[in-house]
Amino acid sequence: MAWTVRSTQDVTYRVQQTDSIFDPGNSTLADVAGLQQRSRRLVVVDRNVDRLLGRAIRGYFTAWGHDHATFLVLEPNEAAKSSDALLSIAQAADRAGIKRRSEPIVAIGGGVVTDLAGLAASLYRRGTPFVRIPTTLIGLVDAAVGAKTAINFNGHKNRLGTYFPATHTLLDHSLLRTLPERHIRNGLAEIIKMAVMKDSTLFSLVEQDADQLVDRRFDTPLAQQVIERSVSGMLEELEPNLWEHDLKRLVDFGHTFSPVIEMRAEPQLLHGEAVSIDMALSCAIAHDRGILGREATMRVIGLLHRVGLPTWHPVCDLSQLCSGLEDSVRHRDGHQHLPVPTGIGRARFLEDVTPEDLGRATTLLADLALESAGR
Amino acid sequence: MAWTVRSTQDVTYRVQQTDSIFDPGNSTLADVAGLQQRSRRLVVVDRNVDRLLGRAIRGYFTAWGHDHATFLVLEPNEAAKSSDALLSIAQAADRAGIKRRSEPIVAIGGGVVTDLAGLAASLYRRGTPFVRIPTTLIGLVDAAVGAKTAINFNGHKNRLGTYFPATHTLLDHSLLRTLPERHIRNGLAEIIKMAVMKDSTLFSLVEQDADQLVDRRFDTPLAQQVIERSVSGMLEELEPNLWEHDLKRLVDFGHTFSPVIEMRAEPQLLHGEAVSIDMALSCAIAHDRGILGREATMRVIGLLHRVGLPTWHPVCDLSQLCSGLEDSVRHRDGHQHLPVPTGIGRARFLEDVTPEDLGRATTLLADLALESAGR
Ligand SMILES: NC(=O)c1ccc[n+]([C@@H]2O[C@H](COP(=O)([O-])OP(=O)(O)OC[C@H]3O[C@@H](n4cnc5c(N)ncnc54)[C@H](O)[C@@H]3O)[C@@H](O)[C@H]2O)c1
Ligand SMILES: NC(=O)c1ccc[n+]([C@@H]2O[C@H](COP(=O)([O-])OP(=O)(O)OC[C@H]3O[C@@H](n4cnc5c(N)ncnc54)[C@H](O)[C@@H]3O)[C@@H](O)[C@H]2O)c1
Repeated sequence: MAWTVRSTQDVTYRVQQTDSIFDPGNSTLADVAGLQQRSRRLVVVDRNVDRLLGRAIRGYFTAWGHDHATFLVLEPNEAAKSSDALLSIAQAADRAGIKRRSEPIVAIGGGVVTDLAGLAASLYRRGTPFVRIPTTLIGLVDAAVGAKTAINFNGHKNRLGTYFPATHTLLDHSLLRTLPERHIRNGLAEIIKMAVMKDSTLFSLVEQDADQLVDRRFDTPLAQQVIERSVSGMLEELEPNLWEHDLKRLVDFGHTFSPVIEMRAEPQLLHGEAVSIDMALSCAIAHDRGILGREATMRVIGLLHRVGLPTWHPVCDLSQLCSGLEDSVRHRDGHQHLPVPTGIGRARFLEDVTPEDLGRATTLLADLALESAGR
Repeated sequence: MAWTVRSTQDVTYRVQQTDSIFDPGNSTLADVAGLQQRSRRLVVVDRNVDRLLGRAIRGYFTAWGHDHATFLVLEPNEAAKSSDALLSIAQAADRAGIKRRSEPIVAIGGGVVTDLAGLAASLYRRGTPFVRIPTTLIGLVDAAVGAKTAINFNGHKNRLGTYFPATHTLLDHSLLRTLPERHIRNGLAEIIKMAVMKDSTLFSLVEQDADQLVDRRFDTPLAQQVIERSVSGMLEELEPNLWEHDLKRLVDFGHTFSPVIEMRAEPQLLHGEAVSIDMALSCAIAHDRGILGREATMRVIGLLHRVGLPTWHPVCDLSQLCSGLEDSVRHRDGHQHLPVPTGIGRARFLEDVTPEDLGRATTLLADLALESAGR
């Protein structure tokens, strides 16, 4: 005898903007985390955010009647994005004694903390809701708006994880005020990714406002638009493909060679910096193939440089790049599915990039980067 | 600005019966695991099964051209159903170098191994398909036919897990031939669970064939029917509620107090034995309420005894039972949702069981159990 089981899961989640998020007068967080019910809560916070904003955050919970919320402060770095940290969150959830469906975990921090807390939430009792408050630019436009959760494992980026979006994600870009400049640049890499793949208007906005966005930490008149277009573009890509049944993903631009680059160069390179190198290399591959014009290629490389992102790092020798591609091919189930631009805001996928192509592209990229720097 | 993301995941999986599963002439496993493609494979096997059947299993993979499959042998016990074992599977997947979608992990063993391998598969690259071959009775009728995966954590049963069914599950009840008798009894607990909740015919079949089923390890004329009815009944319950959005679940009969009992009495009590105690207690509660008649109550307790299952254990003092109920209430998001029979094959949920009720039910159960033993 044989049985076929067919089942459908509907997932709905909200991403919304707010400001002065930890001002007790702003009920948004209280509403989405159900703080009006005086029940148990677990709040997972990034160590640096706790140092800078811990008092305001605790004050908020106290003001809403949660003076016994359990706080867990996590180290925010790639080495700490580990199974140990994951299990420490599960342990804290036990300690807090939260219920399974109605007492969401609240995660406040950068991509490391929201990825970790998201994975813990998805595993804890096979799924406990959570609320995300990204405090980095990468978080605001990327890590905290999608469904992916993860830890690094066995020397590989994000090797273990789930698809488990927060029920609610609150975006408050005034939290970026304290973010170190390098992390603003880092986040701009993911914004430029979306812009190059599918939104030439966004690309122009960033070109126009780059220096201010960095200097003033997104406290500029155009910042709102930049964030909105980035998030909208990202969600448009994710919504029909939340579980990545389709492995041809535009949002993978910059994410083919970068996982290996990032792990090898860690802690020298940040995520967005590795992505930037990968985007530059992908543009060089496309240019070498004759499918991306010289001007567009130079515009991308130029903008990366202008916002202070690297397009090269010594770990990027040919053998590392090849092994990065190989692992991405395993990840894409035997296909390269390498997203490359064919113009600003237009893209396609390559399936047949050879080590020779990679060799030529790295040489070409070195020349183009020199030229861009000389401008 | 605010965004609402809506997405739907369709999940389909197959459960099918076969026999002589490791006979190279039977292509079923090769077909569902895609062994015809000579690619990489990771095979996770229970240590005892490996001892008994390792040669046949390896012979099968070799016969189908996979002499380089990576084998990982796991300890099969509750203490080993841990994050360490989980990570060892992920590490082995890295070693095997399997692709993300087309090189399924094959898990062969009891509920411990299939739960562990399932969790590892769901996390590895955020989801790698897997194939399950249960080798215990609990596996055949329960652990390996649903969607739940898990590890024990922090002193709690199955505290961390996911919903991630194997794409294919193969049931071969001739594998039970070598299973220790106690584990046959253990599996009968889950069969009796289904029978009491919703299938009086199944209950009668087990009553009729109990001794033979145990003695001959399900190599009896009625065994096929017993397994088929159990699996069908289970899948009927799971299919519309695979992610447990509805926390009122008939299949939770026997699973309210038992997680705590099992963890406290471990390794003295097996999973099904703890479930048996919980079922007896739940019947006593229902009988005490006047919603389950005396005859039906005695039939359930009598059948549990007849197949050699316990209805009591010294760890079951009132405080443990209360704390078991409390944790289940957290698990059921603030509700008891306690499934109790109202007859053989009929059930309802209780929401208001008090410590006093539990106290009375334990006394009542002691009397009924004595009486049943005296018959
Ligand atoms: N889930 C996804 O879809 C996704 C997408 C992109 C990136 N990611 C992951 O996100 C991680 C990178 O995210 P990240 O760049 O946010 O890294 P991060 O979490 O390490 O944060 C960067 C640094 O900023 C500090 N910080 C955070 N908020 C601050 C604030 N408001 N003021 C001052 N300092 C602050 C942190 O303490 C940390 O030192 C990577 O692990 C990456 O894999 C995930
Ligand atoms: N996922 C689910 O929905 C679900 C449902 C029920 C139970 N479970 C879990 O399953 C586990 C219990 O399963 P189990 O009873 O199969 O335990 P188990 O995996 O520990 O196996 C029981 C014993 O039988 C041995 N064994 C297995 N197959 C054998 C064979 N063919 N011949 C001889 N020995 C064999 C094992 O080595 C082990 O010693 C528990 O951890 C429980 O939580 C999960």
